[in-house]
Amino acid sequence: MAAPPNSTTFSGDVWAELRLADARDVPHIHRLIHQMAEFELLTDLFAATEELLTSTLFPSPTPPPFTSFTALILDLSPSPIVPDSSSTIASRRLDLSASPLTDPEAAAFASPRGGGRVTAGFVICFPNYSTFLSKPGLYVEDIFVRAPWRRRGLGRMMLSAVAGRAAELGMGRVEWCVLDWNKNAIDFYEGMGADVLPQWRICRLAGAALDKYKGSQEEAAGGKAAE
Amino acid sequence: MAAPPNSTTFSGDVWAELRLADARDVPHIHRLIHQMAEFELLTDLFAATEELLTSTLFPSPTPPPFTSFTALILDLSPSPIVPDSSSTIASRRLDLSASPLTDPEAAAFASPRGGGRVTAGFVICFPNYSTFLSKPGLYVEDIFVRAPWRRRGLGRMMLSAVAGRAAELGMGRVEWCVLDWNKNAIDFYEGMGADVLPQWRICRLAGAALDKYKGSQEEAAGGKAAE
Repeated sequence: MAAPPNSTTFSGDVWAELRLADARDVPHIHRLIHQMAEFELLTDLFAATEELLTSTLFPSPTPPPFTSFTALILDLSPSPIVPDSSSTIASRRLDLSASPLTDPEAAAFASPRGGGRVTAGFVICFPNYSTFLSKPGLYVEDIFVRAPWRRRGLGRMMLSAVAGRAAELGMGRVEWCVLDWNKNAIDFYEGMGADVLPQWRICRLAGAALDKYKGSQEEAAGGKAAE
Repeated sequence: MAAPPNSTTFSGDVWAELRLADARDVPHIHRLIHQMAEFELLTDLFAATEELLTSTLFPSPTPPPFTSFTALILDLSPSPIVPDSSSTIASRRLDLSASPLTDPEAAAFASPRGGGRVTAGFVICFPNYSTFLSKPGLYVEDIFVRAPWRRRGLGRMMLSAVAGRAAELGMGRVEWCVLDWNKNAIDFYEGMGADVLPQWRICRLAGAALDKYKGSQEEAAGGKAAE
């Protein structure tokens, strides 16, 4: 079967780079988030826009990585990566000679870094805080690899690199969430040494249920609640 | 029955203030975190120290509240609170005339603000990020009220004030976690309009399982994994 138009077939050696994202990556990040929402059967919650992603992930000045909201991009390159100390988080070679890979969206996900690179995934993470440890940790909000690039060790590379950076920064924990029906993901995370905590549940106030609290503390602070 | 020594009995009107914490509150925060660990049957995870709390919660300069790790203190005062726009988050009057309250730890928890105030609880929160909304939210790591002050509406006051501030800051969500056996807490949160999400589980890499990733991305970035 011929590959679809605009697809690219990768074979032999390709090079993966996990790097800091910048504002030029926003269109790809936006579409990757939508693909993730589809995978998680949660498109009803998808409300991301390129404008909001730009202003919230890449404010001016952008804080140092891992001190606030941090976006990382996974690029695959047909030629060796020259690591850039200011943006490369991790890089590795993939040997696809035994199993070439066709990426039907290679053209749509051409990396803004050029050189025939394609963007294949992303990570969003930010510091959290453990009072029991009285230390910052790192919370991984998203880690996503596009379908054709899965099962090649790239998710492991991404999570290992983020965990390594957190450990080196003296952080006490790396945490993230998983859907309880996503057995593949749970097995993968446990294989990497993570505990899946059975007892904790996430509580969420959002939308109208959150908006109704607007002004509640100003009334209280202003003394109305005390009258 | 006589109240124990060093206890204080509060009756009639008392005034509650939720305010920004500062470094003088660290000894009380440390002891409140330990009480919370006891309540959650998690003292084996307790490793907080006053030194770490000070350096992580009150760095110099301390970022504006709700833009990074933010600690709030609940003080109860025998005299009316004069709200301070630089630190008061919410305040209200409590009428204890129908049910006076004895605080056996009132002396140990004397507020550093003086005036006969006692510290009765705390909140730790920090920004998180929703990619689906492409907006920051607020994550409430801890919300705790000492035992004698519970069931007086103070937890509601604290969570309402934090939610109100998040809504006014344009944040998309307020989230926190609850233990699945803590039915009182779950009922309380649902009564405040929160959803308790059944499907998500927290994954955690910590301690030795985290440390083993140290240096992993440097090797990869240096090209060893590509050789």
